[in-house]
Formats: sequence, C-alpha cells, structure tokens
Amino acid sequence: MVSFAWLSTKPRNVGVYYPNRILKGLDPWDGRGSKTRNPFAWIREALSSSEQDVISISGVDSAVYFVFLNTALGIFMLSGILLVPVLVPIAMTEKNPNVNDSNWKNAFEVLDKLSMAHLKEQSPRLWTYVIACYWVSLVSYILLWKAYNHVSDLRATALMPRELKHEQFAVLVRDIPPSSNGCSVKEQVNDYFKTIYPETFYKSLVVTENRKVNKIYDELEDFRKKFSQAESMYHDSKSHVKPEGVRQTLRTGLFGLVGRKVDSMAYYNDKIEELTPKLEAAQKSTVIEKQQGAAVVFFTSRVTAAAAAQSAHAQMIDTWTVMDAPEPKQILWTNLHKSYYERVIRQYVVYFIVLLIICFHMIPIGLISAMTTLPNLRRLAPFLNPILEHNAIRTVLGAYLPQLALMVFTALLPKFLLFLSKAEGIPSESHAERAAAGKYFYFSVLNVFIGGTIGGTLFDSLKDIEKHPKSTLDRLARSLPGNASFFVTFVALRFFVGYGLELSRIVPLIIFHLRRKYVCKTERDLVEAWLPGDLGYLTKIPNDMLILTITLCYSVIAPLILPFGAIYFGLGWLISRNQVLKVLVPKYESYGKMWPHMHVRILASLLLFQVTMLVYFGIKKFYYTPLIIPLPMFTLIFAFVCRKKFYRFFQSSALEVLVEHEWKDMPNMETIYKSFIPPGLHAENGPNERLDESV
Amino acid sequence: MVSFAWLSTKPRNVGVYYPNRILKGLDPWDGRGSKTRNPFAWIREALSSSEQDVISISGVDSAVYFVFLNTALGIFMLSGILLVPVLVPIAMTEKNPNVNDSNWKNAFEVLDKLSMAHLKEQSPRLWTYVIACYWVSLVSYILLWKAYNHVSDLRATALMPRELKHEQFAVLVRDIPPSSNGCSVKEQVNDYFKTIYPETFYKSLVVTENRKVNKIYDELEDFRKKFSQAESMYHDSKSHVKPEGVRQTLRTGLFGLVGRKVDSMAYYNDKIEELTPKLEAAQKSTVIEKQQGAAVVFFTSRVTAAAAAQSAHAQMIDTWTVMDAPEPKQILWTNLHKSYYERVIRQYVVYFIVLLIICFHMIPIGLISAMTTLPNLRRLAPFLNPILEHNAIRTVLGAYLPQLALMVFTALLPKFLLFLSKAEGIPSESHAERAAAGKYFYFSVLNVFIGGTIGGTLFDSLKDIEKHPKSTLDRLARSLPGNASFFVTFVALRFFVGYGLELSRIVPLIIFHLRRKYVCKTERDLVEAWLPGDLGYLTKIPNDMLILTITLCYSVIAPLILPFGAIYFGLGWLISRNQVLKVLVPKYESYGKMWPHMHVRILASLLLFQVTMLVYFGIKKFYYTPLIIPLPMFTLIFAFVCRKKFYRFFQSSALEVLVEHEWKDMPNMETIYKSFIPPGLHAENGPNERLDESV
Repeated sequence: MVSFAWLSTKPRNVGVYYPNRILKGLDPWDGRGSKTRNPFAWIREALSSSEQDVISISGVDSAVYFVFLNTALGIFMLSGILLVPVLVPIAMTEKNPNVNDSNWKNAFEVLDKLSMAHLKEQSPRLWTYVIACYWVSLVSYILLWKAYNHVSDLRATALMPRELKHEQFAVLVRDIPPSSNGCSVKEQVNDYFKTIYPETFYKSLVVTENRKVNKIYDELEDFRKKFSQAESMYHDSKSHVKPEGVRQTLRTGLFGLVGRKVDSMAYYNDKIEELTPKLEAAQKSTVIEKQQGAAVVFFTSRVTAAAAAQSAHAQMIDTWTVMDAPEPKQILWTNLHKSYYERVIRQYVVYFIVLLIICFHMIPIGLISAMTTLPNLRRLAPFLNPILEHNAIRTVLGAYLPQLALMVFTALLPKFLLFLSKAEGIPSESHAERAAAGKYFYFSVLNVFIGGTIGGTLFDSLKDIEKHPKSTLDRLARSLPGNASFFVTFVALRFFVGYGLELSRIVPLIIFHLRRKYVCKTERDLVEAWLPGDLGYLTKIPNDMLILTITLCYSVIAPLILPFGAIYFGLGWLISRNQVLKVLVPKYESYGKMWPHMHVRILASLLLFQVTMLVYFGIKKFYYTPLIIPLPMFTLIFAFVCRKKFYRFFQSSALEVLVEHEWKDMPNMETIYKSFIPPGLHAENGPNERLDESV
Repeated sequence: MVSFAWLSTKPRNVGVYYPNRILKGLDPWDGRGSKTRNPFAWIREALSSSEQDVISISGVDSAVYFVFLNTALGIFMLSGILLVPVLVPIAMTEKNPNVNDSNWKNAFEVLDKLSMAHLKEQSPRLWTYVIACYWVSLVSYILLWKAYNHVSDLRATALMPRELKHEQFAVLVRDIPPSSNGCSVKEQVNDYFKTIYPETFYKSLVVTENRKVNKIYDELEDFRKKFSQAESMYHDSKSHVKPEGVRQTLRTGLFGLVGRKVDSMAYYNDKIEELTPKLEAAQKSTVIEKQQGAAVVFFTSRVTAAAAAQSAHAQMIDTWTVMDAPEPKQILWTNLHKSYYERVIRQYVVYFIVLLIICFHMIPIGLISAMTTLPNLRRLAPFLNPILEHNAIRTVLGAYLPQLALMVFTALLPKFLLFLSKAEGIPSESHAERAAAGKYFYFSVLNVFIGGTIGGTLFDSLKDIEKHPKSTLDRLARSLPGNASFFVTFVALRFFVGYGLELSRIVPLIIFHLRRKYVCKTERDLVEAWLPGDLGYLTKIPNDMLILTITLCYSVIAPLILPFGAIYFGLGWLISRNQVLKVLVPKYESYGKMWPHMHVRILASLLLFQVTMLVYFGIKKFYYTPLIIPLPMFTLIFAFVCRKKFYRFFQSSALEVLVEHEWKDMPNMETIYKSFIPPGLHAENGPNERLDESV
C-alpha cells in the first residue's frame, strides 16, 4: 500500500494507475496536480464514490460485484458483532477437564481455546451456539434477499432504453436447418423471419467461416502496424538525428537476417497495397460461399427482439434456436455454427473432463512431484548430475520443484477451464467466463477446503481408521476446530499478499516500463502497453467465494475468523473500487447475469456450514442437535423461492422494462447492423454494400 | 357385443348409440336403413376410418389417444411375435430338478411351467431372456419415437391457422399487481399491454367475481326452462286433450305443495321479467366493482399472442404472469384470480395430500372393513340386531361390506383427485384433468401393481422374513412369476367386462329410457338425456397405463401375457374408435398436450420392467446379469432426449406453425372477444356495450 501511495503520484506511471480515466478522456487526478495530492486520497475517493459512478464508469457487472462484496461484508459484520463478544467469552470460561489448559504452546492453540472445541460434551452452553447458527443463517437470508432485489433493479435500470444498446435490437439464430429448395442461408433466414415478423424484421447477418479472411486481415493489420512504426521512427529521426530523416531498412529473407535490403516504409506500403484487393476478394467469396447455419437477425423493435428470443420458433427444439444476442464484441463467432446436438454432447464431455480434473488432479501433480525428487531426477536425467552436485542448487530444487509443479498447475487451470467452457459451444465471452468461474469454484472448494480439511485428517489417521472404521466421521469432525487456525491464517495471508499486489500493480508497472523502453514505438503501442484487463471474474469470484465458504463454515466454531473475513471483503471492496474507478476496463457487459450464479454459490456455502454444524453438534453429544435440521431445509426453500422469483429476469429481458422511457426516435438500424459485422469482414473503403446486399 | 349388435339397430336407441353423428347433423346409419344393416358393420367402419376422420369428428386429443393405443398394441404385437414362439418352448423343455413337473394342479400352474420361473438357476438358456429384454426395449424406443414425432405433427397441423381458433388470439394474464395510482384493473391492463404491443393489442376482458351474477343467471335460466316446458305441455295438450289446451298450474309455496294456485306460464313469465333487469344491474355492478387481478387479453395477431405467452413481461415472476389462453369453454374462471404464491402453496399442499392418500388409503378402508364385520356391527349398532338375526342378510353383509367400502372408494377417488387438481389453481379443465390422471396413475400403479405384488407376498410370508430378513428381496422376486398368472387373468377380465359394458352402453341406455319416460318434456330435455360425455381420460388413461405396466413387466418373465395385452389394446382400439366416431362428444381440445404425460409414463413402465428383470436375473444367479444394467440407462437417456427435442412445442405453440397458411382475412375480433365472456355476463339483448366499454 505504501508503494502504491508513492508510485501512483509519479506522472510517468499514470498509464498504469489511471488507465480507465485516461480512456474516458478524464484527467487522472481530477484537476489537481500530483504534488498537492494526498497519498491516501484514493481511500477517500473510493469511499465517497457512489454505485452510479461505478455503473457509469465500469458497467453493471462491476456494480454487481460490489453488491456481492457488500453482502459478504454485511454477513460477516452482522454475524461478528453478535458472535465474537458472546461466543468467545463463553468458550474461554468453560472448564473442560478433558483439555489441558496449562500448556498452550503457541497462538494457534490459544485460538483453539476460544473456539467451540473448548466446550465440554453435552455442555448447556452449546445452546448459545445453536442460536448463533440461526443468527448467521437469518442474517444471510435477509442480506441475500435484499441483494437479489437490488441487483434485479440494477439490471432493470440498465436494460431500460435510456441509451442505445445495439444488442437489444438483435437476436442470435442458431441451428438453421439445411435449405430444402437450394436457396442460400441468407435467403432462407430472411424468408423465415419476414413471414413471422412482417413489420419489425429488418435484416439478417449470416455467420460465415472467416478463417481465410481473418488470416489475410491479420497479415494486413500487421503490416499496417509495422508501417506506422516505421513512419514514426522516421519522423523521430528527423528531429533527433538529421533533418531529412533516416529511413529504416530491412531484409526480406528469413527473420530479416538474409535477403535483399529494402526500404521498410516502401516495402510495407507495397505489401498493404498488394493485400487490400486480395482481402476484398476473399471477403466477397466468404460472404457468398461460406455461409454457416447461424445468423444474427435484426429487428426494428426492442420488444419484438426480446419476445423472439424467448419464444419457440420451430416445432422441434433442435432447429431455429433463437436467443438474445450478446454484445458484438463478446460474440464467440466460431461457436455459433455448432449444431444443437454437438453442443449438448460437447457440454457433457466437458463436464466429465472437469469432474476428472477435480477428482484426480492430484495424480499428475503427485507424479511430477515424485519424478522431480532429487534421486529420481538423477536417475532419469543423468546429464543433470554435474549441476546437482552443487549443494545450493540441490536444496532449492528439492524444496521447490513440487511446489513449482503445483503453482504452474494452479495458474494454468483457470485458463484451461475457460478454454473448456468455450469448447462447449457457448456463444458469448461473458457466458463462457461464468461457466468457467463455476467450474473453478467447485474445484477450489472441493480441493482446498474439503480436500484440505478432510483429506489431511484422513492421511494423518489412516491407521486409526483401519482399526475403527466407524470413528471416521467423529475423527473428521473433531479435526474441524484444529483446521480453523490454519484457515484463519489462510484468510489473513490472502488479503495481505493478494490485495497488496493488486493495488500496487507492481507486475503491470514493471512490464509497462520494460515495454515502453524496448518495444513501444508509436502512440498506439504505448496505449497497448498500459491497457489493463478487466476485473478478471474468472479467478476473482471463485477465490472470494472460497474465502466466503471458509469463513462461513467456521463462523460459529471459531468466531474469531469473522473479523478476518470482514477485513478481507472490506479491503477487497476498497481496492476493487479503486481499480474499477481508475484502472480496469471491462471487456464486456452482461447486465448482472453473473449474480444468480454467485447467489446460488453463497447459498451452497451456507448449506455446507449448516451441515457441518449439524455433524459437529452431534459429536458434542448435544441432545438438541436436531434443532439444526430445519436450517438446511430453510436454505433449500430459500434458494428455491429466490430462483422462482428472480431468475427468469436474468435469463431474458422482461418486456415491460424495455418499453419504459421508450426512445421515440427510431435508431439508425444501419449502424446497429454494421456494429455486428466481424472486423475481418469490414469493408476497407466506405460502407460495404456487398455484405448487405449479397444473398 | 351381441347385445350391442341387436340394440344399436333399434331406431329408438339412436340417441344412445349415435349421439355424436346426430349432433354433427349426420345421418346415424350413413343413409342405410336399420334393417339392411349388418349387425357387425361397426367393426368394418371402425377399421376403415382414418385418423383424419377421428380428428375432424372428435379432435386431436382423441387422435392422440389412438396413437397411444396403437403404440401399446405395436409394442406388444412386435414383442409377442418374437417372444411367445421362442421363450415359451425354451421354458417348457427345460428340465428343472427343483420343480416337480408331475403334479400341475390347474391352469395357473401350467402357466408357471411356460414362464421363466421354470428355468434352472444359472441356466445358459437365460441368454435368450437377456436378448428378449433388449428386444422389448428396442421395440418400445422405436415405436415411442415414431409416436412422438407423429403426435408432434398432428399438433402442428391442428395449430395451423386453417380455421379460426379463438383462443389463438388471446392470452391469459394473471397476478396483476394492485394498481398504484387508483385506476381500475381494466385501465391498468389496457395501459400495460398497449404500451408493450402498441400495434397488435386489441382489448382486454378482466376476470370478475361472478358469484352473485351467476346465481341470478342460474335462477333465470331455470325459470326459462320451466317456462318452455310448460309451453310445450300446453301445446301438446292442444292436440291431445282439448283444442284450446290445458294450462298448467302450480302453487307458489313450499315445494309447490302449499300457497296460491297460479298459472304456470304466466308465473314463470313474470319471474323472468322480474329477474332480467335485476341480472342486468348485477352484471353492471360486477363488471365495474368486482374486477379481480386476472384478465384475458386479445391481440389482433396469432404470432404476437403466442410470443407474449412465452415471454417474461415483468421483472419479477410473481406479477403479470402471461400464458396461453385455453378454449373459453374450459377456462376455470374461479381459479384465475389466485395469486402466484397461493398457487404454489396450494400445489404443494395437494401433492402432500395425494401422497398421504397413496400411502395410507388402506387405513380408512381397513378401518371401515374392520368396523363393518358382523360382531362389530352388533356391538356398535345394537338396534340392527333383529335384522342381523336373519342368516341370509348376515352372509351378504359379511361378504360384501368390505368390498363395498373398497368399491365406493375406488369410484370416488378419480373425482376427488380432479377436485384436488382444480384446487391447485390450474386455469383450464384439460390441464386439471391431465394433472388428476397423473395422480391416479401413480395411485393405481403403486397400489394395484406394486402393492398387489409385493404387499401380498409380504403378508403371506411375514414370519419367514422375521427369521431371515436378508431373504426378503429373494422372496419378493421369487413370487413374481406366481403373480404373473394372477395378472394374466386380471388383464383378461378387464377387457371382457370393461369393454363389453362400454360398447353396449347398457347403463346410459337404461338411464336414457327412464328419463325419456318420466322426466323429458321438451326437445332440449331429450337431447340432454342422451348427450354423452367425453372419452373420460381421467380414468381411462390410468387404467390403460396400468394394463400396459403389468404387461410390460411380465412380458419376458411370462410371455403368454403379451397376447392378452395385445388383445386388450386391440379391442380397446376398436371399441374406442366406435365410441369416438359415433358416441362421444369431447368436452375440450388441448391439441395433444396429454401426449408428453403418456410418453413419460410409458417410459416409467419400461424402466420398472427393466429394473424388475435386473433383480430377477440376479435371483436366477445368472453370471451376465450386469448386461441388463445399460437398459435402464438407455431408457433415462431416451426420456431425456425426447423431452429436450419435443417437449417445448407441447408447452407452447411454435411461431413458425402459426404463420403457415396464414389467413389473409382479418378475423372478426369482436366475435372472438364475445366468445370469452362467461355466460352469466352475456348481455341479454344485443351486444352488451357495457362490458366492452366499462373500465
């Protein structure tokens, strides 16, 4: 944080710390110079910013993420206010003859003394813990209900047609059946929708197989970029080296090392002029010959588009599937043409692979770890022997090789899950990211939390279990409070290290300065160098969810975890607010469709907490343990009611929302249509009539 | 059947045997006199009738019922052709040392000899039975797939706008939220839909609380009926008794026994004239003051109506629920205003009650049976003692009282289930009947089939089970073939008694002649006397399903049941065809929405069959029993695929179907609107402008 306060005042780093504001054309420091600025002003700014600011700067998805953080924070604060001052003294003052109070060795064991583990079996004090379970559940229900209502309103407000949203006029049509009378897909789509919607149908854009066009387009773009780089270097050289300028040269052969020496600018220009007609010809043939069985259909009315996306068009579900169109920039074009059955099969295959990964990911990691122990390394790779003779290297390798394998795996997993989700045939980036985040959540909860608790205990006492298999459950539950101290430190570590890195943006800062020094030549390159990503829901939400699950589960057993959880989400709120307002640029906008997923997962955590408590009360041989049984049932009913009440609106747009404050002016349909044309197919010079009129 | 052949040729019975044809204005015997008619011509006529005839005379629902019969018949015929000639000899020729072949006492035990029970444990001949299971399943899958496709096409053809269907222009709107600015529900509905569908919205009809109006209307109708009866008797007396006629008189007091003597026609006329303005006033106040939170909304376009019924209109699911309008005649008006949550809660309460009935219905019946044994009767009702002294009465009572209790229960149950289904808040008659039929199916399968098989066995051998609890499953499965002979007779009895009664219509014939003689005075009364009901899906389908389940489950164990099943469905087809073409008048048309329910239940029966076989092979200690395990999985996958592919179109109309052969003429919207006004609110004289214009 200190490094952030210092680094962010430097004008040279402005691109790293305020890219969002620069892109919006705002002054990074709100009109004040870097000198007069209080290094901790960002905290005040973050706190004083309203939800509306977030929505206007970063969109509804970010605002929904803050609702999530708020809710988690609220649950932990409200629970903590009651639980910490009540339960901790109750546990501390209990005289438990089975526990030897005198020899607390370290802080961890002091923590144990403050937790539920310190209570005697059948102690009447357990009553307070029952009430605490109800309190935590009640607080969660109320806050979640409020949050869902709030998010639903946020979504409704965002969907209202105050400003033009291109995707509201379009629907995605997939599974177009092969034409029977030999006409093109475009004719077929036009016919079909003109018959059903004679008044509001505008145009259709058939999805094409763009691989060839994209290849030429990318080449062309590459040459354009190089040309402008060469041009800018030439201009620089005019002022710095000599007035008439130094023209760059390059060799045309392999890697620019061999071949004829030519003038760069002229060479690139030639290439561009050569490729342009080629691109146009390729565009023409693609549009006509490579039509696929999917299309984007445009209507002149928002209501018709939304109603069409919710209606069955064909008798069989596997043809003419119509759905809401995502924003043009987040459409995964290559997924669109995949047929209904292909999608279903792909989905199940992916689910199966993910299941395998969750269950058996320890096997490959274990294998790598085993293989990379020093003796094995020596046997498998004898040529490394001279290196391994060094003591220092040996120590480092021995200690860190298994860790390294695990780290690489953990870093690559989210990307791999995203790749898998896209392979399911999902049509939009945001949807794929939601699907991948869900998979990652299951992975992290099952492995880090449950695997960490139960697995660890299992291996510790495998021999005992062999002798008394019935005591397994007892043993597991008994180990819960012991793990509590581990997880308290886990939560604390997360916010100290994770958030510090995120706020100070050390890694992007270093990369930015390196790129500025060695790579960047034009203004555009410079922007690319500091252009940040988005909030990264893919890893951020599952990680937050993991902390939430851990904190919830231990909230009653070891209430001291609650303040740590609250700090995690409080700090997270503060830092994410800064990032969202000043740094991050969202990649897409899904109008809060992430929320139902978060909601269900919070409820799953709550359920896990309640079941854990049920087991743990049973182990304490508390007579009134069945009093906990209604809680999981309440959670299931609550989840069911919320799903019934709210979920439909997150699947599709409600029609009443679309007509509120209806724009009376007709939007420019041609602009909307153009915005959906993929870049590779965009005409180079003026509007491309070929694309519109070709059938 | 003989009695039918004889009775149906009598001209006096024409109303009982050909009501359908008379209502359609057709000659009952196709132009031929009753004399020249072959008594068995109906069989030829039924066989030669096409599906189109059925649809045009009795609607899609009846045609779908025949598809069901066809499918069941097909499954049993195709299975029987292979299974009976192959499996029966295989079982017969097996030498099983454990079974004593010599002392077959009766036909039942001969049946056992032809069944799978006769095979030795681990006999290699069991391989044929495995193949038989696969054959039955395969035949079922193929025929069910074809049937679903066919029904889907039937539905599509019926929904195509060849003729005007009023309900296709309307949607049902429920859960209208209370108005915020004090305007009436009608204003609110009009506002809401005019904003969303500015071009296609036509009018709305708000549901009102009609109890008061209906009471007056019923009274008025009653007087009108009596007036026309008196009038017709007066006219009759003119020709029969004396030329100036005999005017009927009645007393105005209690039950027409005391009070002033008045002229009937004048009295009824006075009453009608007195009530008519009262009805009009009541209509006026009802329409304005008793509006409820539900409405029927009319659109000028089929596509808009269908799309609206499939779209979410409000942000929250519990307001502005929009769904397809059912036919006006089958709307359950009193259910419409029930709120979303009321419906949900009612549904679960009803499910719970049905569960209780299924599980514990034997308790009240058992209690009644126990109470009505003779010694108990004597103790409980000592005043009956003199009667009970008679030997004959004692015998009859002792034998039939418990049976009577069971019969009364079985007869009342479907009506009670229909009442429960309506209490769920379902908006249409057809939907309620589907729901009730589903409940009745579960009841009959669980009780008659599973209860009959397993329960009977359990009680028989309760002591053995106490000694060897682990042998229960063995014992249950061992009893399966024994029950087979019982179920074969069960199926045979069903078609001999049940279909005979249905075809000959003895009961309606007797009632008709009694009514004609003693009650009927006008032509209208006469029509009412012979007016038949509909096919009675409520009891017919669950009963057929029960036979299907029994036959499927025993198809491999005792293949001789297959011909009986085939005869049941074959005869059923023939007789129902006659009934549908000549007798029955459908109450409503749901365009085949019953089919998905039948389909799922056939698959449930198939699953039960496969699981039964799995257990039974296990008991025969057949090593390759796991070969059966894929079958239940195939069934589940098949059910899932069918649901995915076909079901959506049965939930709502596909838009493409609605535009095929689109009527170019605008329908008369006013007629459509009028057809939805409930009878109690119909204006007496000319079009009722009050209803249309009142807000």
